[in-house]
Amino acid sequence: MTATASPMLAATDTANSGDARRARAIAWIADVHDHITALFTRLDGDGAQFREDRWERAEGGGGHSRVLTDGATFEKGGVNRSVVYGRLPAAAAAKLGGRGVTDGESRFFATGVSLVFHPRSPMIPTVHLNVRYFELSDDDGNLRDAWYGGGTDITPMYPFADDVKHFHRTLASICDRFHPSLHARFKPWCDEYFRNTHRENEARGCGGVFFDHVRPGEDESGLDADQTMAFVDAIARSLTDAYGPIVEKRRDTEYGERERNFQLVRRGRYVEFNLVHDRGTHFGLHTAARIESVLMSLPPLAAWPYAPTWADGSFEAELLTMLAPRDWLTD
Amino acid sequence: MTATASPMLAATDTANSGDARRARAIAWIADVHDHITALFTRLDGDGAQFREDRWERAEGGGGHSRVLTDGATFEKGGVNRSVVYGRLPAAAAAKLGGRGVTDGESRFFATGVSLVFHPRSPMIPTVHLNVRYFELSDDDGNLRDAWYGGGTDITPMYPFADDVKHFHRTLASICDRFHPSLHARFKPWCDEYFRNTHRENEARGCGGVFFDHVRPGEDESGLDADQTMAFVDAIARSLTDAYGPIVEKRRDTEYGERERNFQLVRRGRYVEFNLVHDRGTHFGLHTAARIESVLMSLPPLAAWPYAPTWADGSFEAELLTMLAPRDWLTD
Repeated sequence: MTATASPMLAATDTANSGDARRARAIAWIADVHDHITALFTRLDGDGAQFREDRWERAEGGGGHSRVLTDGATFEKGGVNRSVVYGRLPAAAAAKLGGRGVTDGESRFFATGVSLVFHPRSPMIPTVHLNVRYFELSDDDGNLRDAWYGGGTDITPMYPFADDVKHFHRTLASICDRFHPSLHARFKPWCDEYFRNTHRENEARGCGGVFFDHVRPGEDESGLDADQTMAFVDAIARSLTDAYGPIVEKRRDTEYGERERNFQLVRRGRYVEFNLVHDRGTHFGLHTAARIESVLMSLPPLAAWPYAPTWADGSFEAELLTMLAPRDWLTD
Repeated sequence: MTATASPMLAATDTANSGDARRARAIAWIADVHDHITALFTRLDGDGAQFREDRWERAEGGGGHSRVLTDGATFEKGGVNRSVVYGRLPAAAAAKLGGRGVTDGESRFFATGVSLVFHPRSPMIPTVHLNVRYFELSDDDGNLRDAWYGGGTDITPMYPFADDVKHFHRTLASICDRFHPSLHARFKPWCDEYFRNTHRENEARGCGGVFFDHVRPGEDESGLDADQTMAFVDAIARSLTDAYGPIVEKRRDTEYGERERNFQLVRRGRYVEFNLVHDRGTHFGLHTAARIESVLMSLPPLAAWPYAPTWADGSFEAELLTMLAPRDWLTD
C-alpha cells in the first residue's frame, strides 16, 4: 500500500489548509502518473518512448499527456494527468453530483490521471483506468464537498475468459485489502456504467471496477480519509498485477485478418461509448481541456461495417456473450 | 421542379385532413428515396446493388434503409427513409423548436430521408443530405406546428477548390429558382452547424446549405406552402447536378497511401461531429429508431492518430484552410 506513505487528505482539514491539501493531491497524481508510465514502458517491451506534451488551460490548470504511438505491443496509448480548476454555475456543480451546492457559482478543483492503451494484437484487451479527486468550494474558499472517483476496466477483442477472470480476481483481492464491501459495490457499478445504451445496452467490455463520489472519511465502508486515499491509490496502481500478466501471456499469440477485423469493429463501439456516453470525455470537451489529450482515448483505427452479424459458435459471437455482466470470481 | 406535380401541403389544411397530409408527406419522401437510390446506383458505376432493410419502431413508425457496401466507387454509403411518430414530453417538444408547446405531452410526426456516402477514393468528397418534415399536434390532433428542415453538404478529403465551387454554385442556382434570399440564409447556416466546437470550431467539411423550422406558407422568403415543399424537394434532388459531376470528374484520379491516411483522419473528425454534435443522430439515438440505420452515416474505417500536424504548403494543410467558411460563389 504505497499510498499510506503519501500525504493524505486529513479529516480535520480546514478551509485554510485547502491549498496544501490540493498541492498534496496534485503531487500524488504526479507520482501515479510516473508509476503508470514506467509500467507501460516495460509492458510495451521494446524500449518504448512516450512523447510528453504539457498544456495549460486558460481558465486554470493544465496537464501532462504521455502518448505512445506505434509501439511494439501498443498500437496507440497514453496516460494523462491534469489539474483543472475554476468556477462552475450552480447547475453544472449539481450535475457533477456535488453536495451543498447553492445558487450562484461554485469553485471547483479536480486532479486526476487517465489512461487508455490499445494493443496492436486483438488477443490482448484494451485497458482503461482513471482516478480523480474533486473539490467544490464556495466563493470564500470554504470546502463544500470533496470526493474521489475512478476505476479500471478491460475490453477484450477475443474471448479469453481466463484473462477476464484474472483481471476481476486481482481487482477483488485489492479491494478486499481495504474493505470486504468494496468489490461488491464497485464491480456492478462498472457493469452499469460502460454501456452503449443506444446499442440495446451492449457493454463496452468486460468491466472491472468503477466508483464515484467516494467521500474521504464518509464512505459507507467506514474507511477513514487516509484509508480512502490509500484504496484509490491501490486501484491507480492495480494494472501491474491485474493487466500486466495478461499482456505477457498473450503477447505472442498468433492471429489473422479475421481477428483484426473484429477488433476494429469492437473499437468502433469503444469510440461510440466514449463520444456519446462517457462523462469523463464530456467533462474534458466542455472544460476547455486540450482536445488531443481528452481524445487520446480514441483508437488508432476503427471500423463501422454496416449491420455486421456473427455466426453461432464463432469467436465473435462468443465475445459478445462474454460482454453480458457475470460474476467472474466464482464462474 | 419535380415537386410541383407532387401533392402539396395546402395552407388550408385542417386538423381533419391531418392523416391525408401526413400520408402525402410519406409518399413524397418515398419518391425522393427512390430518386436518390437510383442516382447513387448510377454513380457507383458497377451494377451496384443496395441492400434494403425495413424496420419498425415499437412506439410508432419505421423505416427503410438502403445500404451499399464495398461498391466500385463508394466504400460505404446508404440512404434511409423513416416515419416516426408518437408522444413527446413538453420539454422535448420545446427543444425541437416547436411553437405553441403547452404543458403535458405533444404528439409528433416526422418523416424524412437521409444519406451519407463515403467514397473509396480520397479524391472524391463524402456527401451528406437530409430533408425532413415535422409536425407537432395537441392531444386532440389539432396541428400546433409544422416545418421542414434539411440540407446537403460535402466533406472533401483533398483540396480541389473547383469541386467545392461547383457544389456551392449548383446549390445557389437551385435556391435562386425559388427566392433570391434563400441561399444567402441557408449557406451560412450550414457553415455554422457542421462545426466540431470541441476542435476549436473546425468545420466538418466545406458546407453547402442547411435549414430548419421552415414553415409552409410562413417562411420569411414569402414562399407559399406549395413553393416551400417544391424548394425542399429540389434540395432533396440536388445531388444529380451538385455532386454527380464531381464523382465523374474525380473517379479515376490517382492517389496514394498518404492521401488515404489523411482521408481516414478526416473521417475520424466526421465521426466526432456525428456522435458528439449532430442533432439528427441524437434524435435517432433517443427515439428508439433502428440503431444500424441511424449510425449508417459512420465511415467504414476511420483513424485517430495522436495530435497529427501537417507541413505548411502540404495538401493536408491546404485542405484545412479550405474548411474555413468562405464565399464560394465569387471566390
